[in-house]
Amino acid sequence: MTDTATSFPTDHAAPAEVLNPPMPEPIGPTHEGRRRSAAEEARTLVAQTNVATLATLSEDGHPWGSLVSYATLADGSPVLCVSLLAEHGRNLRADQRASLVVAEPARGGDPLNSGRVTLAGVAQRPTGTLEATARDAYVQAHPPARLYAGFGDFSLWVLRVDRVRWVGGYGRMDSADAASYRAAEPDPVQGQTAYAIAHLNADHADALLLMARAFGGHPDALSATCTGADRYGIELRVVTPRGETRARIGFAEPIVEPDGLRGATVELTRRSRAALA
Amino acid sequence: MTDTATSFPTDHAAPAEVLNPPMPEPIGPTHEGRRRSAAEEARTLVAQTNVATLATLSEDGHPWGSLVSYATLADGSPVLCVSLLAEHGRNLRADQRASLVVAEPARGGDPLNSGRVTLAGVAQRPTGTLEATARDAYVQAHPPARLYAGFGDFSLWVLRVDRVRWVGGYGRMDSADAASYRAAEPDPVQGQTAYAIAHLNADHADALLLMARAFGGHPDALSATCTGADRYGIELRVVTPRGETRARIGFAEPIVEPDGLRGATVELTRRSRAALA
Repeated sequence: MTDTATSFPTDHAAPAEVLNPPMPEPIGPTHEGRRRSAAEEARTLVAQTNVATLATLSEDGHPWGSLVSYATLADGSPVLCVSLLAEHGRNLRADQRASLVVAEPARGGDPLNSGRVTLAGVAQRPTGTLEATARDAYVQAHPPARLYAGFGDFSLWVLRVDRVRWVGGYGRMDSADAASYRAAEPDPVQGQTAYAIAHLNADHADALLLMARAFGGHPDALSATCTGADRYGIELRVVTPRGETRARIGFAEPIVEPDGLRGATVELTRRSRAALA
Repeated sequence: MTDTATSFPTDHAAPAEVLNPPMPEPIGPTHEGRRRSAAEEARTLVAQTNVATLATLSEDGHPWGSLVSYATLADGSPVLCVSLLAEHGRNLRADQRASLVVAEPARGGDPLNSGRVTLAGVAQRPTGTLEATARDAYVQAHPPARLYAGFGDFSLWVLRVDRVRWVGGYGRMDSADAASYRAAEPDPVQGQTAYAIAHLNADHADALLLMARAFGGHPDALSATCTGADRYGIELRVVTPRGETRARIGFAEPIVEPDGLRGATVELTRRSRAALA
């Protein structure tokens, strides 16, 4: 089973507390719930943008990186449209082995403490109905391509993903196999999390504090700030008399709709209030 | 001579006007002046950020891409600090061929119409005084590394750049050789251009119009907007009774200081006014 988040490798030749300083432990009930698998993290990242870096092999076997725009098929396979006049296009024609790196759009801060995924596989020219599907997907993801996707020197490629390596930031990384990647869903709430987090922190600090006390493991919490949210739960930074710490609290059910964060947090607030009553 | 900007390859199997629609030609004096070479463009891009995508070779020869943070030595050589616990670290230890892709920070719009550069070369472990220089540069560019750059599983690498491919966007691309890259300077005004462009457009539309009429080739210009600036000149979008077009106007002298754009545009405005008097 390689498809779950693991902690930072413990064989770094340095004390673990340098990278992961100790934080107050839970002293009350916790309910972390499910977390996105590496395959889900990868699918979510890939669904977030349309620009990536492609690694191919130059004629002499040298690894060659280049910026590309991509679309995604329903099974997560990336679609590329490259010119044979460009080095990456010539490379793919000669050797179809490739990998694609998709990075979370920069949000300031440490760029290495953000999400990225490498999809390694073999690029294939789509044929039959797949060709039209791939072309439509590419033009939809990258509208300027309607001007050139039909040019003779541009060719469509679908990357058949064989291996997935996800890094979520310091201490959050894992691999996923091809079948898990293809079967996983992008998180439906991903496009709404930035707004939801800002809204929760601006207008519902009282609800976050209830959650931290009831299910975050910190009944003595003094305040709580939302730092993350996904279809399975929310992440809090919690201030306690014992110091500052973090908590994850799972929702009752996975969210299945893009606008589901509101309902899930309202439900969690209600349950937190009941648990503390 | 490969070190100058060239236009979009003319052998694209499509009419050139699809990608480059015709615009009104100059009907008056022009002074485009010098443009940044591909080597200067590359050095400027590399100086702008500290995050890139590294392409290395996996054990089986598959190209492998991964996100890295980098620093830059005085000659433009990138410095990396990677863990041997990570795939790219193991890859470099086994085969030092690599390339690094640095992309202009996203500004919205078409991601393929923005700057990026590929630096291909061979990674080397720095020794002697170079090791301390490289480590200091890396920790300065990426401060969190002070926590782990000394760990036993992290190693410093300096990429000896052999080949440079710069793409500035649609129709702007060229290669540079290693010597040109090492000798070129990053544009000193790069960090100031966004502010300068906004300021010129907000407060000095009259001056931009003078420039377009005097040296942009469009004495009948009705309005002009600044769309770009560098140490050698400015780029304008110009509205004329004949349609909308573009102009580049060179400064009298290359700017050598980060804060030199103000003086250069004031001087160009003065000369434009004199030329039209």
